[in-house]
Amino acid sequence: MQVVYTEDHRQHHPRHFLVNGAQHESPEVPERADRLLAAARAGGHGIVGRQHFGRGPVADIHTPEYLQFLEHIVTRWRRIEGASEEVIPNIHPQGRWQTGYPASAVGQAGWHQADTACPISEGTWEAALASADVAVTGAEIVRQGARAAYTLCRPPGHHAYPDMAGGFCFLNNSAIAAQWLRRTHSRVAILDIDVHHGNGTQGVFYSRPDVLTVSLHADPVRFYPFFWGHANERGEGDGTGYNLNVPLPRGTDTAGYLQAMDRAFQRIRAFAPTALVVALGLDPHEDDPLKGLSITTEGFAEIAARIAGLKLPTLLVQEGGYLSDALGDNLKSFLSGFEAAAGS
Amino acid sequence: MQVVYTEDHRQHHPRHFLVNGAQHESPEVPERADRLLAAARAGGHGIVGRQHFGRGPVADIHTPEYLQFLEHIVTRWRRIEGASEEVIPNIHPQGRWQTGYPASAVGQAGWHQADTACPISEGTWEAALASADVAVTGAEIVRQGARAAYTLCRPPGHHAYPDMAGGFCFLNNSAIAAQWLRRTHSRVAILDIDVHHGNGTQGVFYSRPDVLTVSLHADPVRFYPFFWGHANERGEGDGTGYNLNVPLPRGTDTAGYLQAMDRAFQRIRAFAPTALVVALGLDPHEDDPLKGLSITTEGFAEIAARIAGLKLPTLLVQEGGYLSDALGDNLKSFLSGFEAAAGS
Repeated sequence: MQVVYTEDHRQHHPRHFLVNGAQHESPEVPERADRLLAAARAGGHGIVGRQHFGRGPVADIHTPEYLQFLEHIVTRWRRIEGASEEVIPNIHPQGRWQTGYPASAVGQAGWHQADTACPISEGTWEAALASADVAVTGAEIVRQGARAAYTLCRPPGHHAYPDMAGGFCFLNNSAIAAQWLRRTHSRVAILDIDVHHGNGTQGVFYSRPDVLTVSLHADPVRFYPFFWGHANERGEGDGTGYNLNVPLPRGTDTAGYLQAMDRAFQRIRAFAPTALVVALGLDPHEDDPLKGLSITTEGFAEIAARIAGLKLPTLLVQEGGYLSDALGDNLKSFLSGFEAAAGS
Repeated sequence: MQVVYTEDHRQHHPRHFLVNGAQHESPEVPERADRLLAAARAGGHGIVGRQHFGRGPVADIHTPEYLQFLEHIVTRWRRIEGASEEVIPNIHPQGRWQTGYPASAVGQAGWHQADTACPISEGTWEAALASADVAVTGAEIVRQGARAAYTLCRPPGHHAYPDMAGGFCFLNNSAIAAQWLRRTHSRVAILDIDVHHGNGTQGVFYSRPDVLTVSLHADPVRFYPFFWGHANERGEGDGTGYNLNVPLPRGTDTAGYLQAMDRAFQRIRAFAPTALVVALGLDPHEDDPLKGLSITTEGFAEIAARIAGLKLPTLLVQEGGYLSDALGDNLKSFLSGFEAAAGS
């Protein structure tokens, strides 16, 4: 299948990553994309470049306040004496204590960055825009009639809310692509198989009945993003019943995962979508450094085959998946599993 | 006047302090209390120890969920592999994206710690309880008929909400003391003259008409706590009109401060309280390292004299004020200014 990729992701290379209060190197490095691209090539897939769609598709999902913040915050941050190299939040509005939108750079960082795993520096904005373009390019390929396309998005997107970055994510590529598909398709489903709950995507569509959001992920009771991804989050208002979370016990293996997936597919079929976006995290793999589930490399082929079995025009959007020896193989396995089932 | 103090504050010695994304040493060090105590002694004031009031006064203000968190989080944090020495939050619920209370230590840290300036370690809980006891001891002295008492509380309290630490604060000593005074006094006013907005205190009483909260502080538009302290925050529900914020331009001098204070006093007089709690930050001083306003050492005497002029039983609760050559003199100036005016 066609693979969409751009070199522009390299402009974003985050360093800061606070886990359990302790400083680590960020695992969301450019080399991730290198390995995924090499695997796609090795799988015989054709690579196409990013088309430029401007800001429209991004502004369909994200608030102007947030986009203005993302574009200009680095310049504003540089003016603060003694400020950190990367933009990192250190105070948060919490919402339950009534507050308004802050004017200062520090206040806005706390407002628009949910955590300390989404540092912003020179090039982040451009790379995030490029990543969104990659997703929309793929969505356009699917709209034009392709059975499927794979978009090698980096930075990833599924933790980004309309007005908030988080967990390596800035612009929600999967949501942006789903909205683009809505131009043709009245009902679009998003299936998120990243090891982490797709909280940003859930937030984008939480009150909408035209986009079904389904996420399988390690139980957030003791796993990022902690606050979101529980089974009782079902959507709100007109969107009630249009969000399905399937939290899985830590270490769930391929067999357990496939069973849960089959149950989730009942919801997707009941929704009768005419197009599917897969938020494709490869981090449920057993060797992924952010270890939450225990899918095997072969397991990804089976997961992909089941997804192909939905027989929907399908856009695959890269989300997480971090450096391990298996990373490239996992993508190869997924793509070949999908194609084998789709062709059969 | 009587000064209440305990050595128990030493159990809390925070290290981590992230400002504008960059790591610094915390200025909220035990030496602050040493200098303030020495100044109180030098001013000829009698020192009395902490009485023990148990958990009741604290539970009057703070939620059981939060108190359980504060008491046990260090033990739970130690069980996390590779976790930081101090408990520091790295992901926040933000409130505007619907969420529930998290089960994990990391999630709860993000829920109960607004920022990265309130690290928790061994001894923090005990020191915070002791600090609350100091405040209640002082409140009891005032309840028994003293014209005034000064409580050397450390850690400070006015940024602490019912369920949230922030800005060096864990338990809201001023709020706890005000609530204790409510046993005798039907209407209590809290006047917060710390350089930072007393956001936690505001949060505690935001919907209550029995405690008036008034705060003068450097304009939060570009100053901690950023999200709170603006003039349009007036209280809510039954408490509407019972909160007054007076944000001042950065660098406001003593003359400008006294003018603003006189306007604030109109509100206090209109409320007709029968007791007053002063959240006494000495950080509006011109040499304070957290520089926001430009009060002189002599200015504190004049401020204190105006407060004494309200002719109310008055509890002084130490809040901020950080290491500078003037710290002790500022307290001496305040206390002597108060006594001179109260005695006249």
